[in-house]
Amino acid sequence: MTRVKCVVSYDGSNFNGFQIQNEARTVQEEIQLALFKIHQEKVIIAATGRTDRGVHALGQVFHFDTFLTLSEDEWKKALNSNLPNDIHIISAEFVSDSFHSRFDAKGKIYAYYLNAGEYNPLQRQYVYQYNRPLNVEAMNSAAQLFVGTHNYLNFCSNKESEVKDFIKTINSFEVTIKDDIICFRTNGSGFLRYMVRMMVGNLIEIGARRKGVEIITSRLDSKQINTTSYNAPSEGLYLEKVEY
Amino acid sequence: MTRVKCVVSYDGSNFNGFQIQNEARTVQEEIQLALFKIHQEKVIIAATGRTDRGVHALGQVFHFDTFLTLSEDEWKKALNSNLPNDIHIISAEFVSDSFHSRFDAKGKIYAYYLNAGEYNPLQRQYVYQYNRPLNVEAMNSAAQLFVGTHNYLNFCSNKESEVKDFIKTINSFEVTIKDDIICFRTNGSGFLRYMVRMMVGNLIEIGARRKGVEIITSRLDSKQINTTSYNAPSEGLYLEKVEY
Repeated sequence: MTRVKCVVSYDGSNFNGFQIQNEARTVQEEIQLALFKIHQEKVIIAATGRTDRGVHALGQVFHFDTFLTLSEDEWKKALNSNLPNDIHIISAEFVSDSFHSRFDAKGKIYAYYLNAGEYNPLQRQYVYQYNRPLNVEAMNSAAQLFVGTHNYLNFCSNKESEVKDFIKTINSFEVTIKDDIICFRTNGSGFLRYMVRMMVGNLIEIGARRKGVEIITSRLDSKQINTTSYNAPSEGLYLEKVEY
Repeated sequence: MTRVKCVVSYDGSNFNGFQIQNEARTVQEEIQLALFKIHQEKVIIAATGRTDRGVHALGQVFHFDTFLTLSEDEWKKALNSNLPNDIHIISAEFVSDSFHSRFDAKGKIYAYYLNAGEYNPLQRQYVYQYNRPLNVEAMNSAAQLFVGTHNYLNFCSNKESEVKDFIKTINSFEVTIKDDIICFRTNGSGFLRYMVRMMVGNLIEIGARRKGVEIITSRLDSKQINTTSYNAPSEGLYLEKVEY
């Protein structure tokens, strides 16, 4: 058997998230369908992590095992020719049997894009449109509160009942602006469900001068459940890269 | 009556072009529907020109006459709140009764975007994906053949039977590349149906070294009907700006 690691990009707009589920279109289902066509039998993939409905990926990673003897380039072509046009395999690479896309990931980079300028109908599924003034410096400054190792119990979805460890390390979190597009980019050891969107949602409240930094400081590292209600919408979020 | 000039952007992906027609979704129909809701009676708009199915606009212009007494800013808001999210009014401005969006236009700028790099599923409706090597300098050099005043009989759709004047002036035509995205940008007095896509289609053949410049020189200014068959697909084309 050969283990194949793939880097994949997808437009999350028309998917009900990454993870396979009944009666909804998902990225995993489409990839496994392509693998089924190639193998004529079921092949299950393991991905670095899930992305939610509407969230995009420029560099999601998954792996699978195969008995076929295609080359790396042939794998890329075979998969892409069997995938719909909103999913694209960027690379396919042979890895050792001990490689695991999820357990070996050292970190991930997420980017969140917000349009602070005139609404652009061509980007309606690719940036979050925000029509009030935002203070980018205040957001970048508050973002530094997340850097380091913290308990993120109150910055994740309550659905995450199976999760026991809420301690995550954020290596960097930068907020920048270029041509009216504000980019929130964070590099971390791992992220809980809705965690990036909740961090960004809090920064937006601060940037709009509607709330102070206490909305973060009062909840971060607290072990008392008091989940934040600020959750930036999915269309602005991109899983940019997984680091190994 | 007040004449209102509007600059409008739209995502052409889900429209069967600009011009109203039976049983197909068009930009004109949606705008007139919004105006109907505001006026409670039919209002017909006049645009600078049509765009075809799948073609985008960042700065299309239209005008209409109204008996209502909204301010310019109120017109922008009223229209946008009644339009679907793939059409957006950028500005509404009062103009004199003699202004005409089509007849007063001095020129238009069209841009055509081609992705010469890795396929990006998020841009599948917004750039033309091209997977062979292209010589940008050769295309930019050949593009200069179009500059000046020429007969474009063989660079337009044959459906354009009502057109009698095929003489158009191209003021500039530049082909540039940045981050694997090739941009064809042309400024001209006016454009016939499919003319930009046919000019770009010819340049691509030349850039790919599949054809020489004679595919242009043999047809440009010829009065014998021999329409070019190279027609770049619609998703890469943007009406950027109308100049008055």
